[in-house]
Amino acid sequence: MNEKHLLMIPGPTPVPERVLQAMAKHPIGHRSKGFTEIQADVNAALKWLHQTEQCDVLSLTGSGTAAMEAGIINFLSKGDRVLCGCNGKFGDRWAEVSEAYGLNVERITAEWGKPLDVSAFQAALEADTEKQIKAVIFTHSETSTGVLNDLAGINAAVKAHGEALIVVDAVTSLGACSVPVDELGLDVVASGSQKGYMMPPGMGFVSVSPKAWAAYENANLPRYFLDLGKYRKAAAKNSTPFTPAVNLTFALQDALKMMQAEGLEGIFARHERLKTATRDAMKAIGLNLLGADDVASPAVTAVLPAQVGAEDIRGSMRKHFEIALAGGQDHLKGKLFRIGHLGFVCERDTLTVVSSLEATLQMLGVEGVTPGAGVAAAAAVFAG
Amino acid sequence: MNEKHLLMIPGPTPVPERVLQAMAKHPIGHRSKGFTEIQADVNAALKWLHQTEQCDVLSLTGSGTAAMEAGIINFLSKGDRVLCGCNGKFGDRWAEVSEAYGLNVERITAEWGKPLDVSAFQAALEADTEKQIKAVIFTHSETSTGVLNDLAGINAAVKAHGEALIVVDAVTSLGACSVPVDELGLDVVASGSQKGYMMPPGMGFVSVSPKAWAAYENANLPRYFLDLGKYRKAAAKNSTPFTPAVNLTFALQDALKMMQAEGLEGIFARHERLKTATRDAMKAIGLNLLGADDVASPAVTAVLPAQVGAEDIRGSMRKHFEIALAGGQDHLKGKLFRIGHLGFVCERDTLTVVSSLEATLQMLGVEGVTPGAGVAAAAAVFAG
Repeated sequence: MNEKHLLMIPGPTPVPERVLQAMAKHPIGHRSKGFTEIQADVNAALKWLHQTEQCDVLSLTGSGTAAMEAGIINFLSKGDRVLCGCNGKFGDRWAEVSEAYGLNVERITAEWGKPLDVSAFQAALEADTEKQIKAVIFTHSETSTGVLNDLAGINAAVKAHGEALIVVDAVTSLGACSVPVDELGLDVVASGSQKGYMMPPGMGFVSVSPKAWAAYENANLPRYFLDLGKYRKAAAKNSTPFTPAVNLTFALQDALKMMQAEGLEGIFARHERLKTATRDAMKAIGLNLLGADDVASPAVTAVLPAQVGAEDIRGSMRKHFEIALAGGQDHLKGKLFRIGHLGFVCERDTLTVVSSLEATLQMLGVEGVTPGAGVAAAAAVFAG
Repeated sequence: MNEKHLLMIPGPTPVPERVLQAMAKHPIGHRSKGFTEIQADVNAALKWLHQTEQCDVLSLTGSGTAAMEAGIINFLSKGDRVLCGCNGKFGDRWAEVSEAYGLNVERITAEWGKPLDVSAFQAALEADTEKQIKAVIFTHSETSTGVLNDLAGINAAVKAHGEALIVVDAVTSLGACSVPVDELGLDVVASGSQKGYMMPPGMGFVSVSPKAWAAYENANLPRYFLDLGKYRKAAAKNSTPFTPAVNLTFALQDALKMMQAEGLEGIFARHERLKTATRDAMKAIGLNLLGADDVASPAVTAVLPAQVGAEDIRGSMRKHFEIALAGGQDHLKGKLFRIGHLGFVCERDTLTVVSSLEATLQMLGVEGVTPGAGVAAAAAVFAG
């Protein structure tokens, strides 16, 4: 059977029918009064989602990488020293972006599947008595491994330093767990539409603190389309510097309304339940998890099957049940599969994935799995 | 009455219902086999639209400005000398982008509403016996004024020089009139989805010639999200380096199918008719046009009303007839209005705009207009 697809990857994530329909409206002029009103509505809701009153939250057309690149290149100058946290594909990417622009990058690495070590940031920042480190850049939820890095811990180290900006890739954490921008004083937070926002891909978002705007004044890396100063100036008039993705903005407005109806606490609690149920189910089935429970991402769970190949499981899930799971990236390709539980995902979806996975393992002849054990474990979380 | 909107601006342009519905499908994984097949289909159709076999045509998430910026920064190095043609808002913008990246920009300017002077390009290029000019950058159809610059003429001057790349903003010409990439040997051609493509905004396209790829190897301007080398590598596997705008790609696939069904000759002839009918109607009504007939853009007509304010006309057209017209930009703000006739626009739309404009002028008490004269002039073009 076809066309009964279930998307369980960590982005693009499933999109509510009403959001798809909002997107399918006929476009209007981006300089019209009607669009300005939508943009005003969206800008206010984005601030709500980022838990900020003092930061600007700017929308741009592009992927999460575009948003994160904007978050790096607008506030730094060539040769600036930055710390990049690298414990997965995306942390590595931000180090690459920084190097592409001639920043002086010091990588703080951890094994893929392990969290970044806060004390390593502390040590590097404390040793920098001349305050040459201009930014600390890292990924909150590392999508490639399902590990949630210690945002509060790294932030405390940055705040103790006093000079450096904290630049956070929150692409798969924003809208999944709390990213309290004002409370923590986060300078730059980047995210993307196809994740917690319950939207299709195509838009990126960057929140910018007053401290980051002060750094912007002296930052000299070249940029134009990603020049956030232009977005700030336009946003003050609820406009955009370049033609925005009008229909995606329709979708965004509707998706943010749905998020506000659920409420931040509701959204975070749902992701926590989905994460715990998924992990408990994998353990009950006897599948190994890449990250430890106390650093598990609310967005995605990475599973390391021992008795059968990860790609065999993905292929069979796709073929028999039309469920899309993500594979491993870079050196983990073929070794793991990843279950997304981010955005427009409900408890029923988790039960569906777990039950289909159990059936798949039976089909693949994996021994030692107690049929129904995974579903029972997930159900126990939802019942609790 | 509301919700009976008619979009007659030079982008976003109207979108066919079937393209909107294609876009509203549930997203799929961008690394899936299904999406790879769509991307393969789209890549082939983009080459058809660009009339090229030897260039890559790359898709990225972003506005036309992002596409054009990519077209500039991937093939040049800091301090490189470039000629920028400036006779409107977009020509000016490409000079600004070039300067933002530290290029050595020589502007070849013409009054807004006049075409760029080919002989000025010839003179500058002929004087450059040391072949220091690395690129000639200009806008084919200047959206801000409705003037079509002489692509073949400027290209001939560039080809006589031999060294410089030709970098063309074809945002409102591609899909409206012929941009024969291979025949002219155009090195870089940038365009955007919300124009001739009959799609919502959010995607940009860049075609790249083998000569431009050779320049890429030594170009040192910093870039990451807009690094076209990454797109080329991914496109070879019908993939994208970053998460693409999946739903916009669905729309693109369908819109390109519609374009192929109409055929290039049909598309160009339709735009030519719409342009001529619009211009003849304005003259019959007694309204002045900004550009001359022999340099008129097939995408947009700029009108300079003498007896009544341009903004009064726009406001009245919007209020009484729900027709969106564009205003003037920069120093022409308030002085002109622009009628888009680009993309999914048919002869009926032109008759609608012209008849509504006649009614608007009557409502505004403009004297000396023969009622029906504009419609008659447009009809004569369609009947001829």
